[in-house]
Amino acid sequence: MNPIISVVGHSNSGKTTIIEQIVRILSRKGYRVGVLKHTHGAIKADKKGTDTDRFRLAGAGISSICDDKMLVRFEKAQGHSPKAIVQALSKELDLLIIEGYKKEHYPKVLFSDELSVADLKGVIATVGKKKISSGKVRHFQPSKIAEIIKWLERDIIIPGRKSRQVVIEVDGKRLPLKDFVADIIKETIRGALGTLKGGKGRKVDISIDFGRKI
Amino acid sequence: MNPIISVVGHSNSGKTTIIEQIVRILSRKGYRVGVLKHTHGAIKADKKGTDTDRFRLAGAGISSICDDKMLVRFEKAQGHSPKAIVQALSKELDLLIIEGYKKEHYPKVLFSDELSVADLKGVIATVGKKKISSGKVRHFQPSKIAEIIKWLERDIIIPGRKSRQVVIEVDGKRLPLKDFVADIIKETIRGALGTLKGGKGRKVDISIDFGRKI
Repeated sequence: MNPIISVVGHSNSGKTTIIEQIVRILSRKGYRVGVLKHTHGAIKADKKGTDTDRFRLAGAGISSICDDKMLVRFEKAQGHSPKAIVQALSKELDLLIIEGYKKEHYPKVLFSDELSVADLKGVIATVGKKKISSGKVRHFQPSKIAEIIKWLERDIIIPGRKSRQVVIEVDGKRLPLKDFVADIIKETIRGALGTLKGGKGRKVDISIDFGRKI
Repeated sequence: MNPIISVVGHSNSGKTTIIEQIVRILSRKGYRVGVLKHTHGAIKADKKGTDTDRFRLAGAGISSICDDKMLVRFEKAQGHSPKAIVQALSKELDLLIIEGYKKEHYPKVLFSDELSVADLKGVIATVGKKKISSGKVRHFQPSKIAEIIKWLERDIIIPGRKSRQVVIEVDGKRLPLKDFVADIIKETIRGALGTLKGGKGRKVDISIDFGRKI
């Protein structure tokens, strides 16, 4: 399970403010948190005539600019599925918070006092003044941010880290792995790399292009 | 060797126009080309008060927005070395063109009629009306874009693809691999994954976090 939550609820439900608080507190705690907002309108993000905009319009897959503090990437999304975009981002993060992509199957946190939880699939928590959820769905008061943080760490971030100890993707699709299979592969690679100069470390990434289907 | 060129030369040397043409032609040919511009001034890329800007200011590692055509990522670069930023980008591309980062050791294409090639390390080609290079350094007239494209494909993009058939990174640093070692590792992994359901495909990415140094 990748550490992803999808935040849903109508506008003015307080989503942005709570996301901002979550980002601030978790970042201070040392986690790398990211947000992805999906909109239907065209994004007006770059200025006309800038070099990045010229390269983007010329067809660059990625047109980017950086200084010592920030990197800004303008990236072609055409032909990429929402799943691929979300997966690529979440790989680089301890927690990815998504706004939008309501139809995708990510665990949802619903902001509302009115909407019925039953209308949406995959709701794992609700945030609002009135408790509208029942059963296994957690409920949080919007003012109790510390409780939300505690829950995110315990139920999303830490399990996410564990499940990412061994990740294998074949043609961009994650391979489901039983624990003992993951262990065999981990130990095989540990052994092979351990004999190479510079082969010892904490994190290992291997990328193989067989050129054709194996 | 990752497929990277660094474009250098004083302003008004025609760099941006040529980069734009390279991006346009190679993208139409089906290559995924990217550009990274490094500046020293602060980047004014996002509008104040937008959600992405609020999340970024709150400390988000990545604050991003997408629609069906484009993904824009605002990313913390603090604490990331130029090398790490360049490597992460180039991994996703067939060719990365860098502007800036003059001191980093990437193969350089120099735009100039005046500057001496000897002043800069790592110049592999020059572009200008007068030929100022000699020896192994290629020279191109700015109007002969087709020749530049041909050279980029043959000398940068295709060798780059070959060298990326097996890539192993330990703690973010690429491991130098002899061909026969790369082959052993490739075949071992091909064998192990071939027995698993969904384990057959063209591209395989394995990521292992040992939790501590192996």
